[in-house]
Amino acid sequence: MGAGDQPGEFALIARHFKPLAGEGAFDLADDAALLHAGPDDGIVVTTDMLVAGVHFRAGDPPEAIAAKALRVNLSDLAGKGAEPFAYLLALGLGDGWTEDWVARFAAGLAADQGRYGVSLIGGDTSGAGGRTVIAITAFGRLPAGSMVHRSGARPGDVLVVTGTIGDAALALRAEAAGTVPEHLRRRYLYPEPRVAIATAIRAHAHAALDVSDGLVADLGHICDASGVGAEIEAALVPLSVAARRLVDTDPEALGTALTGGDDYEVLAAVPPPAVDRYRADCAAAGVETTTVGRIIAGEGPPVVLGRNGRPMSFPRGGWDHFAVGAGR
Amino acid sequence: MGAGDQPGEFALIARHFKPLAGEGAFDLADDAALLHAGPDDGIVVTTDMLVAGVHFRAGDPPEAIAAKALRVNLSDLAGKGAEPFAYLLALGLGDGWTEDWVARFAAGLAADQGRYGVSLIGGDTSGAGGRTVIAITAFGRLPAGSMVHRSGARPGDVLVVTGTIGDAALALRAEAAGTVPEHLRRRYLYPEPRVAIATAIRAHAHAALDVSDGLVADLGHICDASGVGAEIEAALVPLSVAARRLVDTDPEALGTALTGGDDYEVLAAVPPPAVDRYRADCAAAGVETTTVGRIIAGEGPPVVLGRNGRPMSFPRGGWDHFAVGAGR
Repeated sequence: MGAGDQPGEFALIARHFKPLAGEGAFDLADDAALLHAGPDDGIVVTTDMLVAGVHFRAGDPPEAIAAKALRVNLSDLAGKGAEPFAYLLALGLGDGWTEDWVARFAAGLAADQGRYGVSLIGGDTSGAGGRTVIAITAFGRLPAGSMVHRSGARPGDVLVVTGTIGDAALALRAEAAGTVPEHLRRRYLYPEPRVAIATAIRAHAHAALDVSDGLVADLGHICDASGVGAEIEAALVPLSVAARRLVDTDPEALGTALTGGDDYEVLAAVPPPAVDRYRADCAAAGVETTTVGRIIAGEGPPVVLGRNGRPMSFPRGGWDHFAVGAGR
Repeated sequence: MGAGDQPGEFALIARHFKPLAGEGAFDLADDAALLHAGPDDGIVVTTDMLVAGVHFRAGDPPEAIAAKALRVNLSDLAGKGAEPFAYLLALGLGDGWTEDWVARFAAGLAADQGRYGVSLIGGDTSGAGGRTVIAITAFGRLPAGSMVHRSGARPGDVLVVTGTIGDAALALRAEAAGTVPEHLRRRYLYPEPRVAIATAIRAHAHAALDVSDGLVADLGHICDASGVGAEIEAALVPLSVAARRLVDTDPEALGTALTGGDDYEVLAAVPPPAVDRYRADCAAAGVETTTVGRIIAGEGPPVVLGRNGRPMSFPRGGWDHFAVGAGR
């Protein structure tokens, strides 16, 4: 048993996680779960581990930590054209955890379960002795054979990105400087995985991924996997009003926006004849899209053209998860 | 990039984990994996998180840490009658990690991939900033509808356990007192998941699970889930020669063996007419089994009868993962 406000493993699961259990979970009272899929379904799986002090701040609201831990996985699935239906949660509670923190964390998951149509089917809970660690594995379905990869981009494809880029990274940059605009803070805490356009991605994109390492680095991943080059125009990259304000006053903010990561928007390479339909399908699902560049023949890192028409360079190409700091 | 001997995330994956990638992994160069299963397969999933200083000692051989992290998951699958085929690895590297440690960790996984017929299909690697954390999600197949649960035990069923009980817990107990017999040390470091008898469990058991929380506590889980009671005889519980020696000289060692956990043997409730066939099938697969008791009508915790025929009592019913110590 845990001491004081720290109930034991089984009590914690019964009180806070059992209410989240879905089909195949057996009320979280067995050793394993059963995946439910139809005979023509492909099942796509992904896992992401988030560590306090690395991927989130220990003092962030527990609801937001839960949302982020789940959503970064749903975002991976969406980028492949898969619709999420279930997830597993491995939770290592750091020193000084309280049941109130767990209750709020579970409430964050509950809210997102309704929002994205997923349910908890299993997991593992234990003390982690140091920092809190969260590893979520998420499952998505799609028609067999329709998964969208990083590797399908071809010269001539149009690069289309959802939403706005740079908000989360600029939130951290603004925090270091003083106050954080509320819109940016919210975008950092509650990324919006583009689950709504999974069907559109499957229908129209040659290649796609979610932007987590930074727009430039993730575009580089598509180029590497597809054996192509790419060119984007910085002036076309969609910025929120709050991000635009920072970029207009801070000469380094544009670089942060383009390379900072944590966007969880979808970058897709779409063949020209399908671009209008892809964008219309996204719009119909409530997701704004912007054309930012194109795939070109050749290899090498993506070229980002600045306002003067010349290639920009950046101090770093994207977020590296080994650079452990207090900010992430 | 990491500093000194710490390469970046992508280099680490390319050098050490890409060689482990199997079908559906896309060479670990995409955001998600695709599960491969036939139309009549049920897919069973489980996840376990292991934290340095809680579930293993930071100084244990990296090959053994990898083996244990994978095997505890394979053991969960085996207990449900599922045959493992793939896994995801989320690895958070604690302060002071080296590439040599990662190389040896990957070598441990490689050895077990051959041994158990599984392959790596995806994952996530990052710095964890404190303790090393490993979360593995494992996937098993079985014919749809044949998963064995904790909840199927019925009065009259015979309780059959594989291998020997108490070795790992007695290794830790012996360590606190001085030297650890090599057999016990090895059983602690390299548990043997009973993958070989998955078919036999499916064919014959009413209920089953792998013993991780301790024989008494895990039998209690079967009783709770099935709404039955159980009775076992302590003298029947199979002990290794090394464990027997400790039990004969230390009056508290028997309690440690029966409640200590970390056994990764399978406890099954088998209807009497099927017991001989179940045990014969296990023997044919190279796994020794022992009959230790039976399921009875009623509810409440399992009764463990001592040599005098009277119920034994234990200071604790099983391992609680919130009791964070240096030993586990």
